[in-house]
Amino acid sequence: MSAHSVGATDPAPGRSQAGSAPSGGSDPRSGGAWGSTFSWPVRVYWEDTDAGGIVFYANYLKFFERARTEWLRERGVHQRALRDEAGGMFVVSDCRLRYLRSARLDDLLLVTAQATEVGKASLTIVQSALLKPQQEGEPPVLLCEGEVRAGWVDAQTLRPARIPASVLQRLQAAPD
Amino acid sequence: MSAHSVGATDPAPGRSQAGSAPSGGSDPRSGGAWGSTFSWPVRVYWEDTDAGGIVFYANYLKFFERARTEWLRERGVHQRALRDEAGGMFVVSDCRLRYLRSARLDDLLLVTAQATEVGKASLTIVQSALLKPQQEGEPPVLLCEGEVRAGWVDAQTLRPARIPASVLQRLQAAPD
Amino acid sequence: MSAHSVGATDPAPGRSQAGSAPSGGSDPRSGGAWGSTFSWPVRVYWEDTDAGGIVFYANYLKFFERARTEWLRERGVHQRALRDEAGGMFVVSDCRLRYLRSARLDDLLLVTAQATEVGKASLTIVQSALLKPQQEGEPPVLLCEGEVRAGWVDAQTLRPARIPASVLQRLQAAPD
Amino acid sequence: MSAHSVGATDPAPGRSQAGSAPSGGSDPRSGGAWGSTFSWPVRVYWEDTDAGGIVFYANYLKFFERARTEWLRERGVHQRALRDEAGGMFVVSDCRLRYLRSARLDDLLLVTAQATEVGKASLTIVQSALLKPQQEGEPPVLLCEGEVRAGWVDAQTLRPARIPASVLQRLQAAPD
Repeated sequence: MSAHSVGATDPAPGRSQAGSAPSGGSDPRSGGAWGSTFSWPVRVYWEDTDAGGIVFYANYLKFFERARTEWLRERGVHQRALRDEAGGMFVVSDCRLRYLRSARLDDLLLVTAQATEVGKASLTIVQSALLKPQQEGEPPVLLCEGEVRAGWVDAQTLRPARIPASVLQRLQAAPD
Repeated sequence: MSAHSVGATDPAPGRSQAGSAPSGGSDPRSGGAWGSTFSWPVRVYWEDTDAGGIVFYANYLKFFERARTEWLRERGVHQRALRDEAGGMFVVSDCRLRYLRSARLDDLLLVTAQATEVGKASLTIVQSALLKPQQEGEPPVLLCEGEVRAGWVDAQTLRPARIPASVLQRLQAAPD
Repeated sequence: MSAHSVGATDPAPGRSQAGSAPSGGSDPRSGGAWGSTFSWPVRVYWEDTDAGGIVFYANYLKFFERARTEWLRERGVHQRALRDEAGGMFVVSDCRLRYLRSARLDDLLLVTAQATEVGKASLTIVQSALLKPQQEGEPPVLLCEGEVRAGWVDAQTLRPARIPASVLQRLQAAPD
Repeated sequence: MSAHSVGATDPAPGRSQAGSAPSGGSDPRSGGAWGSTFSWPVRVYWEDTDAGGIVFYANYLKFFERARTEWLRERGVHQRALRDEAGGMFVVSDCRLRYLRSARLDDLLLVTAQATEVGKASLTIVQSALLKPQQEGEPPVLLCEGEVRAGWVDAQTLRPARIPASVLQRLQAAPD
């Protein structure tokens, strides 16, 4: 995944488009689609930083998980309810992260999630964390990008299983 | 702050109102004043829970810190800028927590912050985490309440110091 | 709880005794009783610190939980097995923390746990985090002290219940 | 990195060797070389788990960081001192993780770290988390494996820089 896969439907390469059309507008707390890609705002708090003065590297996986949860929620997939009803849950099997720039306390990030593959038992999501520009019109700055693969498992046995049909439909009916 | 002050049945003014009129309305991501008390929405993600199926007890201190940060931000106090400019920061010296009910994955909490004392070198804030009701008109359920005392320190030496005048003014000018 | 409750049986006031008789000796990874109080070594890693350059305040509750877990383990109480077999678990109902000095990256802490009350449905534990001195013979420095109350609950319903007899026996048979 | 790269100098294929000669012996808290690879014991506490009943996926990056820190420490490289003296620090630029099995509360893991490349400005470390067997003689079970690349940066500007000569010497003098 590269930075300009955000807003990939734009004929012009990448980030400028993404920067010029953040659907969130001036409200830092707005979520929803951003360009053609789902994004979720994440404020950097003390808990996220380390003694280097920047966000601790593992915490991007927390940010990515939050964005995936909200992306699922937007599609009507609620994970606790799913577990109670369907007896299963998503578990990450692989992930990759590339860190380009650091985030600091009080920064506002936009964290994207975009499914690139939805299979019968797993899905692959590309994600990125971007620094929201202070001024309108400026492009966001890519901080971290990654790819996460998650498989469906039985919540009791943790064995791989097929994603419930109702979930699959929701994920496939709303392609990114 | 005690558990029973939250909840609309209280005839006394103030916080009972908070229960009956959450300003956040139906938008789970809205912050701002909530009744007369500042509150900040916090969604429970996987990262917040533990193998007991509920929010790990230490994480309420994270939630409380987020709400304090946003409460400060609402008053124009930005902690990273302050540290860069004034060379100081707030450090917690005491806290107390009382856990009444558990929060689970996907729950939406409202986390409050209310200064009860603003001194020259420290401030005391009472805080609570409430479960946002699923239905309009229902009162929120108190999950956890606490009190946090924070002192101002020099960021290099970590020695106690006076809160900068510009910060004090902002905290005193906007009483909860 | 005060600093000198560590090693309280010593006629001399407090910390010097504790410092002069750390059972862990020169091995920073050794646990076990320390003076008359159980202590567990905790190294400060990047994950524990924040942008202030010190340990994030909520993380002392993690350190305290680790020490309580090891204190229980020393008494033969294994929490996962207990949950699987007895269907219950300890849940914290109250805690208090007082922060005196800061810990930094690479510091080695000694975290104590001492039961002050063991009831039929709950127990109270006083805890502290001390900075292990670099040199033998120097007393440890108290960084943070606190008190945690935990109750036994049914793991499914989360309702308060009596601590299983086998657990109670182990806790009472090995007074601190 | 694959599971059997642990103990790779063994002519016999992989894990059996590693399993049969853990230098830590019966002491769960012992660190040090394990087979030919550095490993560090990590106990799974409540803080590490999530509502799925297993270790939260981001926390393996915490475990890996702890093992890298101890691996550096074993070579005489102390990160806080380095930052204070040399003005620089390691920052992760890339990481990859593959999750094979889940860890649960109370499990004891062995987390390995092995440098595969030490350059002038960065190093690459392969790491794994293994479940320590309950019984002597049984091989450990691979839970998670990954690769982390870290570069040296100036602590103020966060710009890439050359690893200090004293650090390089220590890393190269003690090949895994």
